Amino acid sequence: MPGLSEFSLIKYYFEKISTPRSDVLLGIGDDCAIVQAEINQQIAISVDTLVEGIHFLPNADPESLGHKSLAVSLSDLAAMGAKPAWFTLALTLPEVKEPWLAAFAEGLATLAKQHQIALIGGDTTRGPLSITIQVNGFVEPEQALRRDGACLGDNIYVSDTVGDAGAGLKLKQNQLKVQQGKQQQEAFLQQRLDKPTPKIELGRALHGIANSAIDISDGLAADLSHILEKSHVGANIELEALPISSALTDIVSKEQAEQLALYAGDDYELCFTVPLEKQDELKKVKGIYTKIGTITNEPRKVVFYRDGQKVELTGKGYEHFSVED
Amino acid sequence: MPGLSEFSLIKYYFEKISTPRSDVLLGIGDDCAIVQAEINQQIAISVDTLVEGIHFLPNADPESLGHKSLAVSLSDLAAMGAKPAWFTLALTLPEVKEPWLAAFAEGLATLAKQHQIALIGGDTTRGPLSITIQVNGFVEPEQALRRDGACLGDNIYVSDTVGDAGAGLKLKQNQLKVQQGKQQQEAFLQQRLDKPTPKIELGRALHGIANSAIDISDGLAADLSHILEKSHVGANIELEALPISSALTDIVSKEQAEQLALYAGDDYELCFTVPLEKQDELKKVKGIYTKIGTITNEPRKVVFYRDGQKVELTGKGYEHFSVED
Repeated sequence: MPGLSEFSLIKYYFEKISTPRSDVLLGIGDDCAIVQAEINQQIAISVDTLVEGIHFLPNADPESLGHKSLAVSLSDLAAMGAKPAWFTLALTLPEVKEPWLAAFAEGLATLAKQHQIALIGGDTTRGPLSITIQVNGFVEPEQALRRDGACLGDNIYVSDTVGDAGAGLKLKQNQLKVQQGKQQQEAFLQQRLDKPTPKIELGRALHGIANSAIDISDGLAADLSHILEKSHVGANIELEALPISSALTDIVSKEQAEQLALYAGDDYELCFTVPLEKQDELKKVKGIYTKIGTITNEPRKVVFYRDGQKVELTGKGYEHFSVED
Repeated sequence: MPGLSEFSLIKYYFEKISTPRSDVLLGIGDDCAIVQAEINQQIAISVDTLVEGIHFLPNADPESLGHKSLAVSLSDLAAMGAKPAWFTLALTLPEVKEPWLAAFAEGLATLAKQHQIALIGGDTTRGPLSITIQVNGFVEPEQALRRDGACLGDNIYVSDTVGDAGAGLKLKQNQLKVQQGKQQQEAFLQQRLDKPTPKIELGRALHGIANSAIDISDGLAADLSHILEKSHVGANIELEALPISSALTDIVSKEQAEQLALYAGDDYELCFTVPLEKQDELKKVKGIYTKIGTITNEPRKVVFYRDGQKVELTGKGYEHFSVED
C-alpha cells in the first residue's frame, strides 16, 4: 500500500480482521468499543503478553506469531469452557514493515475467523516487539471449569499429546540435532510450537463433566500443580500413560520425551479432572484425551509411578516470570 | 517481603489492588476471570499501552506511573460516558524491584479504589518496561458518547484546562526553563502531566446532553479532528476562549500557552459537543467546562478566530504511532 502513512497502514491491515458479530455495537475507532453481553451468560476474561526474546525467538515468522498470540489467550477461554466473543490487541512494534504486518494480521485473522471472535479495539505503539491480547468469552452461570474443583478419586486427563512444543523449541534453538530422514517429524513438532490449537470445543464439551481444568502453558507438571494447590489435593501420575506423539519418540529418547511431556511449556493442551460418576458421560465427549492419573488427598503432593512402581523424579516446570497464567 | 520469590512478590502487591465488587465471580488466579455483566447495560472496552521512552520518560516515578497507566484508560471510559467496572493489567518489567512494585501498585490501587474498578486479571513478563491496561465499563443502551454525533450549530466544549500536561513535559525535558519563585506553578503542571484526572463523572453527566465526545490524549486539535472526521462536520474555534490555567500563563507566553493548549497531548480532558436545545440541561451539569467554538458544515475544516477575526495557524497535534486512540 505505497503512499499510506504508518497509521493508515496499520488500520488497513487490522480492519481486515473482521469477524462480523451482532453483539459488537461499536468496533475499532472510538474511545471504547461497545458490546452487548448475552443474557444469562457470564463473561470470561483473560490477558496474555508475548515478548520477543522471552516467549518467542527474535525474527519469528510473523504469520505464526499472529496465530500464536491469539491461540494462547483462546486456550485460556478453552480451559474455562468459555465460548470466544471479542478480543483487543495491544501491539508494540519497533518499526512498521508492511510484509510483517500483513503476515501477522493474516495469522491472527485466520484463527479469529475460525473461532468467531471479533477484534474490537487496539493500541499500537512504537517500542520493543511485544503483543498483548485480551480475550472475552461467554460461559453459562456456574459452568466455568475452574482450578479449584478437583476431588479425591477423580481421574486426571490430558488432551492430545504433550511435550511436542518443547521439542519444537529445542529444534529451533539447535539444542536437538536435526536428523536425516526425520524432516516430517521435525516439521510436526515445530508446528505444534508455532501454531498451537486452542481446545475450545473440548472445553465446551466438558461442562458438567470435568470439575477442574487448566491449559498447559508452563508444562503439565507445573500447571497440574496449580489445580492441586487450588483444590487442596494431590495426584498420582502414571508415567507410562503420558500421551506422547510418535514424532516426539522418533526424535528423542523415551526419557527425554517424558521430561518434555512433564516439564516443557507451550503445549496449550487441557489438563482436567473428572469424577468417577461422570466417566460414562465423558466417553461421549469427542476429542483426544488420555487418563494419566488420579487425584489423592495429600495436598500438593505428586507421586509418579512407572509400571506400578513409585519413582522419584527431579525437574521443574518452566516458570514464566508471571502473576498468573 | 524478603524471602518471597519474584512470583509471590508480584502476587502480593497486586492482590492489594482489591476493589471488592459483587459482579466479580472469580478474580485473579485462574485461567480467566469470571464476571457478570449488568442487565440492560452495554459494555465499553478500551485498551492502552504505555511504553517507557515513548509515553513516559525513563526512571519515571512508579507511583505516578501506576496512577497514569490506569487514568489514561479510565479517560477512554469517561469519553464514552461509561461507568468503570473491571480492568486487567499486562506488565512487562526488566527486573523485579520491590520498592518500584510497591509504589506502582499503590498509585494504581488508589485510583482504582476511587473509581470502584476491580483488577480481575493480569500477566507479568520480563522485558523492556511497558504497561497495557484494558478497562471494561457499563453504559446504558444508546447512551454512549460516540465521536460521530456532532451536528451543524452545536457548541464545542472542553473540560477543565488544556496545555498543562504539555508544559509539564517540557519542564521535565528541560525545554522550559525553571523560573525563580514559580515552583508552585511548575509543580501544578508536572502534576497535571503525571497524575491526570479521568473525567468519569462529567462523562456520565453528559448522557442525553452531549451528542459527541472524545478525550484529549493527543492534543485538543488532533482529537477534535477525530470528532469532525467521524461526524462529517467542521469547526470554528475561538482562540481567546481556550481554557488555559494561570499556572501555564505564569510560566510561558500567551502564544506558547495557546500552542500547548491546541497541540500538546496528555491532558485527558474531555472535548464534547452539545446541541443548542440542550444548553439549558448542560447548565445543570456540575464540573468545569468551557465553550470554545461551534460546529460548522464544512467537513474536517477548522477555522480559528481571535477576537472575532479569522487567523491562520500552523502546527500539528502530536500523533502517537497508533491504531486508534
